[in-house]
Amino acid sequence: MVTAQNFLLYLCTDRILSLGRPITEAVEAAIAGGVTMVQLREKEVSTGEFYRIALDVRTVTRHHHVPLVINDRLDIALAVSAEGLHIGQSDLPLSVARRLAGNRLFIGFSASTVEEARRAQAEGANYLGVGAVYPTGSKADAGEAIGLNRLAEICAAVNIPVVGIGGINAANAAEVMKTGAAGIAVISGILSKPDIQDAARNLRVIVNETL
Amino acid sequence: MVTAQNFLLYLCTDRILSLGRPITEAVEAAIAGGVTMVQLREKEVSTGEFYRIALDVRTVTRHHHVPLVINDRLDIALAVSAEGLHIGQSDLPLSVARRLAGNRLFIGFSASTVEEARRAQAEGANYLGVGAVYPTGSKADAGEAIGLNRLAEICAAVNIPVVGIGGINAANAAEVMKTGAAGIAVISGILSKPDIQDAARNLRVIVNETL
Repeated sequence: MVTAQNFLLYLCTDRILSLGRPITEAVEAAIAGGVTMVQLREKEVSTGEFYRIALDVRTVTRHHHVPLVINDRLDIALAVSAEGLHIGQSDLPLSVARRLAGNRLFIGFSASTVEEARRAQAEGANYLGVGAVYPTGSKADAGEAIGLNRLAEICAAVNIPVVGIGGINAANAAEVMKTGAAGIAVISGILSKPDIQDAARNLRVIVNETL
Repeated sequence: MVTAQNFLLYLCTDRILSLGRPITEAVEAAIAGGVTMVQLREKEVSTGEFYRIALDVRTVTRHHHVPLVINDRLDIALAVSAEGLHIGQSDLPLSVARRLAGNRLFIGFSASTVEEARRAQAEGANYLGVGAVYPTGSKADAGEAIGLNRLAEICAAVNIPVVGIGGINAANAAEVMKTGAAGIAVISGILSKPDIQDAARNLRVIVNETL
């Protein structure tokens, strides 16, 4: 079961930003450091390769009882029995994903406005990824930064967990949590650091201090 | 319901090989010419865009009672309630796709050897796409041409419909049918022709004459 605790430190994977380290090792180290949920993002790979990577990552996340979320691909999420699916603005419509997934998956949605957030909640999203909170180079499609005030507005407008994403690091993680966010999503702030476990642990300590 | 008749003239779409003509118009013309099944192939588009294109194409195929097969993507096939899913060697494992799809989709599989064909049949494939029969430039991943003898061997080795694919045109369609194939799959032989409807009609006449 996914609880509020699972949103505290949400890792999004990125093959390139991991600096060549194998994804299963990177995920293993991040979980050892305190990551509470893992979202697997793969672009530019075949469905078969995505499936095999997802199976490998699922082995790691299951071993540590950390929920695995698959980005974009309902087929992969169902195929590997992931716990969740994350839907962005250019993925399947949320309502369609919900209809197809039934109760087999919890579903997150990317929102950057109060209106998008409310609509996603109404359409059955179980949580929201909201951002980009700060300017970021980690996601090409992240859009303009929305800032802390907008994030706080969105957190107040819905009653599902909101994870802040985009440009979050050890220097600003605490102020993100203070907006009412359930947690922070991090890519390069963990995966691009020389010591992944240490970077995750550092962020987790900061997050925990805000609770 | 999908019957043997539906495999006679199997169109695989290709955005580039359609020479810029909108896919729904191309499919409409191909069906008017006698295409009996349509496989929608999209690469390099987002899931959301694939979904919208598939919905549009499904409107056309439904109107004409022609089965629609989605290439590779189980999520899209389920999302638009397509009749079928086609699985290639770099897609989801066939057994996984069958487990997830249940009886909601008929599933085709790409095979180029007797062994692959027999295994696919055992794993629940409803038909096979076998090739490349002839050398082709239409599919980058088509592999070496297998020729008519191999195609005939595969047709004899399984009891599910076999569609020949790869380099098939008006000049060789009849000899492909004579191997025992249930039909021919065509991409550029229809979509790259100036008159799509006429190209499809011409091929359909040739196929029908072999029955």
